[in-house]
Amino acid sequence: MGGLPDFDEVTPARCGELADRFGSPLYVYDGSTLVRSLRELTGVLHPAMEVFYSLKANPNISVLSLLAAHGARAEVSSLVELRTALAAGVAPADVIFLGPGKKPDELRACLDAGIYAVVAESFAELSELDALAAAAGRRVRVLVRVNPAETAQGARLAMGGKPRQFGIDEAQLLAAGDLPGRHRHLDFAGVHGYLGTRILDHTTAVANTVQVLALAERLAEATGIGIDAVDVGGGLGIAYFDKETDLDLDALRAGMYEAVEPFHRRHPHTRLLFEAGRFLAGRAGVYVTRVRYVKESMGQRFAVTDGGTHHHMAAVGVGSFVKRNFPVVALSSPDAPATGPWQLTGPLCTPNDLIAKDVALPDLAPGDLVGIARSGAYGPSASPVLFLSHGHPAEVLVHEGTAYLVRDRDEPADLLRQQHLHHFPATVPATA
Amino acid sequence: MGGLPDFDEVTPARCGELADRFGSPLYVYDGSTLVRSLRELTGVLHPAMEVFYSLKANPNISVLSLLAAHGARAEVSSLVELRTALAAGVAPADVIFLGPGKKPDELRACLDAGIYAVVAESFAELSELDALAAAAGRRVRVLVRVNPAETAQGARLAMGGKPRQFGIDEAQLLAAGDLPGRHRHLDFAGVHGYLGTRILDHTTAVANTVQVLALAERLAEATGIGIDAVDVGGGLGIAYFDKETDLDLDALRAGMYEAVEPFHRRHPHTRLLFEAGRFLAGRAGVYVTRVRYVKESMGQRFAVTDGGTHHHMAAVGVGSFVKRNFPVVALSSPDAPATGPWQLTGPLCTPNDLIAKDVALPDLAPGDLVGIARSGAYGPSASPVLFLSHGHPAEVLVHEGTAYLVRDRDEPADLLRQQHLHHFPATVPATA
Repeated sequence: MGGLPDFDEVTPARCGELADRFGSPLYVYDGSTLVRSLRELTGVLHPAMEVFYSLKANPNISVLSLLAAHGARAEVSSLVELRTALAAGVAPADVIFLGPGKKPDELRACLDAGIYAVVAESFAELSELDALAAAAGRRVRVLVRVNPAETAQGARLAMGGKPRQFGIDEAQLLAAGDLPGRHRHLDFAGVHGYLGTRILDHTTAVANTVQVLALAERLAEATGIGIDAVDVGGGLGIAYFDKETDLDLDALRAGMYEAVEPFHRRHPHTRLLFEAGRFLAGRAGVYVTRVRYVKESMGQRFAVTDGGTHHHMAAVGVGSFVKRNFPVVALSSPDAPATGPWQLTGPLCTPNDLIAKDVALPDLAPGDLVGIARSGAYGPSASPVLFLSHGHPAEVLVHEGTAYLVRDRDEPADLLRQQHLHHFPATVPATA
Repeated sequence: MGGLPDFDEVTPARCGELADRFGSPLYVYDGSTLVRSLRELTGVLHPAMEVFYSLKANPNISVLSLLAAHGARAEVSSLVELRTALAAGVAPADVIFLGPGKKPDELRACLDAGIYAVVAESFAELSELDALAAAAGRRVRVLVRVNPAETAQGARLAMGGKPRQFGIDEAQLLAAGDLPGRHRHLDFAGVHGYLGTRILDHTTAVANTVQVLALAERLAEATGIGIDAVDVGGGLGIAYFDKETDLDLDALRAGMYEAVEPFHRRHPHTRLLFEAGRFLAGRAGVYVTRVRYVKESMGQRFAVTDGGTHHHMAAVGVGSFVKRNFPVVALSSPDAPATGPWQLTGPLCTPNDLIAKDVALPDLAPGDLVGIARSGAYGPSASPVLFLSHGHPAEVLVHEGTAYLVRDRDEPADLLRQQHLHHFPATVPATA
């Protein structure tokens, strides 16, 4: 039967009901798939490891609330993400704050909330945080983000092993002398390493973990940085395109255990943090769009939908060298056979607004719904939602039979609220 | 003297005052430059041509208000853009509405407002609009967007001459028979052609104009489409990068006159529409960011600023094959000599958040301001402003000595307002 890959609960027909009720375009999240993804990951990691959900993947407060109810901690990178995490019920002791350019009010909010740790990304940040902590009469736990001298290959985007705005070069740390002595209000609890993203090869994920754990021990020995906690990063991917394959979870489980167990025996009290965003949220979302017009141009069939780049830049492939299609489902006729290639486009005035190119789908007609699967991560929050002033789509989370509207669609008033009109006097006569 | 290229009024020192007053990051628009750009364009075009400002380039209501006060008409592509144009003081008779996937409420709003013309992009849209007009007991003027069989070379992104979601293929129009007879509530006033964008070569702009005018005459002869109005598109670019040169305006003026004058003599009453967005707004804006941290990594100097991809995706170069730098100005020390290359990065947790690569700048220190020039078009409205929940920056328009806050910075409450928190019961014990 045709349907939505990955989804445990939401069917194409249910997407149709939701689009009728909440309008389109629309993001639909399958709560059971979110929970299952978290359980899958927990089952793959070493039992001593804790999962920190990276809000940047999908910052919706109810998505996080559901994940937190099932044990996820939170990795945040802005004041709003921090507030979201706390409001969603994550304990401050389970929150870490990352980012190379934290603002003073963000650092102060970390102090005020008493989060588990600030991941410090530069010497200058350490000094600033120490001064803020002194002023507040508090101590702050920090993990020092390290840019290692080299990293393993295999990630889609390398985060370390080369000049980067993130963290502190390993060599600089080794030469830095007595960091705790120079920062009397900071607890140097351990290190953070984040070596890559969109990893689909389990050997890369394992090698990264091995490397960060070794780095933590090396630095604990050579510097004043402790080993109370190690954040090994994350970066697990999901398959989006043809020729990509999802991670081999059994192999990953075996490799992670082997990588972590010896360290864990040597340091049984060290808190082990693992970050995951895309892996948890990516498979749990579908972007539901409705066909407005069907047309033919120079021999190609186009379905012009009400959704596009402004809501789902990743599916359109902005920033990619080659246009590849996310999985597409004809939600209104999931079981019908494909009748040939379609160009799935959006409402924007740019030829780049191409959601899927030459995608095999059944016949489409105005009013039909088309779903872009695996769209739960880096969707609207990573897209130019204000382009052509279309605004953010609605988001609905379905869990155990109930559909929750978790984000309102932007209405015109929402899009104009923040602007101010100054009337300039006309200097030319108006058109007759 | 070092300064802001293009700007007539706003100096680097003024940017500093504005950043202190309104916070950073911040977009600053120079009103005099906006007005001058409009005058330049009006002076370049044939006197019979009218300038329609494309709101997609910069949808700020006060930017449009200033342009409209100096004679610009409006080209809009969404309900909110339409409302913006009318609120900013553009007469309905000077508004056109484009877009391949117009929604029913957008078409109805066009009818209600009595705008000059709907630019129809498909046969299906013509049918729908005719039915809506019949229901409303009105007539609607349409321009038919044509996808010509071929187009001139030279545009950065070709909009026609190949299979496209835009407009109707020329061959299909020629075979369509009596369109006015089949759409009794539509006035087929003429055609619209938009052949490319980011044009920096005047011969391309002229060739496009010649082609659309010829197309208009050809179709007027062969079909029932009239010749009361022709929209020749636009797409004039500005130079962003090394090795790009601004348009030769004198050559463009001569070429446009030669291209348009014979047509204008044959059709003296035809309204001639020319669209411009980037050309009008692009040079009039600077993105002002403040350095948070300065650091070195593996021999490279990084200035981590509070601005980045989420506000200015074009400068970061997302979607470009090669990283090229927008013009960068050290606003805090515009006259100091460059001391070598800098990596200018932002607060996001991705190595792609690189505003300028190896850019020659003076020494930078925390607190210094750096401006990205030529950023008045396709700035925040074309960027993922919600990424990491940082939100939209403030926008300030300076004109004749006065600074107008024309867009509030998004505060945390603004970013959370549209979300709904559903509390899910905890299924695992919280961390001790």
